[in-house]
Amino acid sequence: MRTEEAHHQSMTTTAGPAHAAEPTASSTPRPHAAEPTTGEFGREEVLLASRNHAMPLELLRWERTPAGMHFLVMHWDVPMVDPVAWRLKIGGAVVEPAEFSLADLRARDRMSMGVTLECAGNGRSLLQPRPVSQPWVHGGVSTAEWTGIPLVALMDETGLRPDAVELVFSGADRGFQGGVAHAYERSLPVRAAVSGDVLLAYEMNGQPLLPQHGFPLRLVVPGWYGMASVKWLDRIDAVTQAFEGFQQRFAYRLQQDADDPGEPVTRIRVRSLMAPPGIPDFFSRRPIVPAGATKLRGRAWSGYGLIKSVQVGIDGRWLPAQLDEQDGRHAWRGWSCVWQAEEGDHELICRAEDDAGNIQPLEPEWNYQGMANNAVQRLQVTVLPSVSDGTALP
Amino acid sequence: MRTEEAHHQSMTTTAGPAHAAEPTASSTPRPHAAEPTTGEFGREEVLLASRNHAMPLELLRWERTPAGMHFLVMHWDVPMVDPVAWRLKIGGAVVEPAEFSLADLRARDRMSMGVTLECAGNGRSLLQPRPVSQPWVHGGVSTAEWTGIPLVALMDETGLRPDAVELVFSGADRGFQGGVAHAYERSLPVRAAVSGDVLLAYEMNGQPLLPQHGFPLRLVVPGWYGMASVKWLDRIDAVTQAFEGFQQRFAYRLQQDADDPGEPVTRIRVRSLMAPPGIPDFFSRRPIVPAGATKLRGRAWSGYGLIKSVQVGIDGRWLPAQLDEQDGRHAWRGWSCVWQAEEGDHELICRAEDDAGNIQPLEPEWNYQGMANNAVQRLQVTVLPSVSDGTALP
Repeated sequence: MRTEEAHHQSMTTTAGPAHAAEPTASSTPRPHAAEPTTGEFGREEVLLASRNHAMPLELLRWERTPAGMHFLVMHWDVPMVDPVAWRLKIGGAVVEPAEFSLADLRARDRMSMGVTLECAGNGRSLLQPRPVSQPWVHGGVSTAEWTGIPLVALMDETGLRPDAVELVFSGADRGFQGGVAHAYERSLPVRAAVSGDVLLAYEMNGQPLLPQHGFPLRLVVPGWYGMASVKWLDRIDAVTQAFEGFQQRFAYRLQQDADDPGEPVTRIRVRSLMAPPGIPDFFSRRPIVPAGATKLRGRAWSGYGLIKSVQVGIDGRWLPAQLDEQDGRHAWRGWSCVWQAEEGDHELICRAEDDAGNIQPLEPEWNYQGMANNAVQRLQVTVLPSVSDGTALP
Repeated sequence: MRTEEAHHQSMTTTAGPAHAAEPTASSTPRPHAAEPTTGEFGREEVLLASRNHAMPLELLRWERTPAGMHFLVMHWDVPMVDPVAWRLKIGGAVVEPAEFSLADLRARDRMSMGVTLECAGNGRSLLQPRPVSQPWVHGGVSTAEWTGIPLVALMDETGLRPDAVELVFSGADRGFQGGVAHAYERSLPVRAAVSGDVLLAYEMNGQPLLPQHGFPLRLVVPGWYGMASVKWLDRIDAVTQAFEGFQQRFAYRLQQDADDPGEPVTRIRVRSLMAPPGIPDFFSRRPIVPAGATKLRGRAWSGYGLIKSVQVGIDGRWLPAQLDEQDGRHAWRGWSCVWQAEEGDHELICRAEDDAGNIQPLEPEWNYQGMANNAVQRLQVTVLPSVSDGTALP
């Protein structure tokens, strides 16, 4: 087991600014490979979209996102982890460093909960100019039932030294970003990590984790954007100084430009989305809806509190949506409203407010990495007198 | 139960050229919404890529593609099918029309087999000019273990009238394409449908079908491109004239231009792909490999026969790959070869030949819809003296 000091040293050597290569003229390693653009999309963005796939918005009709439809972010390749040889190693500023096999973890009391995760970059491609990275539109959000053991239970076993300030979570995935090779590593302040519902999850929707979701073990941090929920977890280290790895110090920041140190991305901003009504056109995805009473359905969530209300805007006129029962503290909340659809083209909007008083902005707040864009969804819909097999578009 | 004549009538009314709307000046409904382009990618293509996701190429290391990593094509929205109310209806030119519940089907003798499916559009975005539709690069291929009952067993129960020429398979998914609303429907000649290993599958990799893969029942047609394996199957009709639905007559054709009637896409052309060695760069996906002996691994498949050989090209020099054991008749075949990687940039190619004598072309064969591009993969790789955490790109 490395000592905590050696680990801190190794992490700053690996990914910190003092030793990192400089991929650009700037002194700051860049998480994004190019400057924001107003142009069309490049092949790299298409490849990222096809790997790190979205949840198709019609899946908002499902309370729990089925396996394989949960949105996905993998910075690099999916690692093949041998679950027999695998151990979770806990070290650094702890009282008793320890290792746990998967069987060790499964033998402990388990906890299950529905958790809505959202990628911090969800909505990035709607910004102008567009930050060039994973080109999310709206679908970087999903809700699964996660099962595992509370992180706090394991940390109670190893104990934390009083000078520990953060826990650093390391994944088995590695690759290059910002010009330097590193493993995916993120930290949480001790208080956030061990108070509450942070989970070491080994099941998703009642099945062992799939390889792409972090098999055999991942962190699930309810209320935080997905970058905090480290996958393929194999090491937790308590550290006595703030972690400065690449994915913490340079990626996932709210910056105004490349040299702005910015603020870290943390909790999920309040947001709502609508399942497209009617049936879509293959290429444009525009929903085509028959005239008459149409039930609009969607989900809303916030990392800052419970959802208090959802408003639906029909061509600029606001209607209150009806909220489903709240489903635990960490899962999205369903909503619905009936729309009397009249022939023609319409714009549908949904806008949520949480009980901390946060409300979605009508326009995106631009930032350099394209993070945490929670502006309202605007859905352009065509209503025809009727829609059945053989109906032609006007 | 509709009569066979009425069904044929309804299908040509629905989607045939005589009654279809004309979305363009041409008399031919267009499966693609725009002409081929040499430009960058539009938002619609990015959205399609994020819905209809690829199998990331490192998953070639898995013999069976895990749930959720299998490539996905959904022309429209994923339908929510109630498995209790659902029935498979078999009618048209059969002796005894019949309906089957899911329990009826599960009570019959089951069959399992590994089947490699590939989207007919796989490789589309590598064509110049690029047909504008689902923008596949390489990842539209996967292999799952499918379980269900042979179609021939069910057709033996209903019987086929001697004048039946095709079976038409109808899915529960519907939407607009080519300007007209229709359900997804495809036919197979009777001989192809009832002789051999065509499966009505209700399980994938030992689990009930996931919603996006066709729950509760789908067709699996080994050796054919994926468009034949109709999902969310709810009706099979025997017909006495060739089926002329939109997805048969206009989509999935090898055309030279929009007005060329073209040839139908059928079986999967011979192809091989390589799992990227080393570790990737996040944005460019370029593999970075340490110098020395590197095992290259991949898979190869063909709908026309078994794989006979795979050659690996290193900077234009060909080496024979070693083939894994053949895994059934319908699953891809693994291959590997050891590459002595030397510092610098290299181009890696793989090229398969099947036992019917088909070999992959070195350059794509262009066609208007971007179908069946089985040209060799060309992988640009950077070799560094060593690669470990902290290694900087040159």
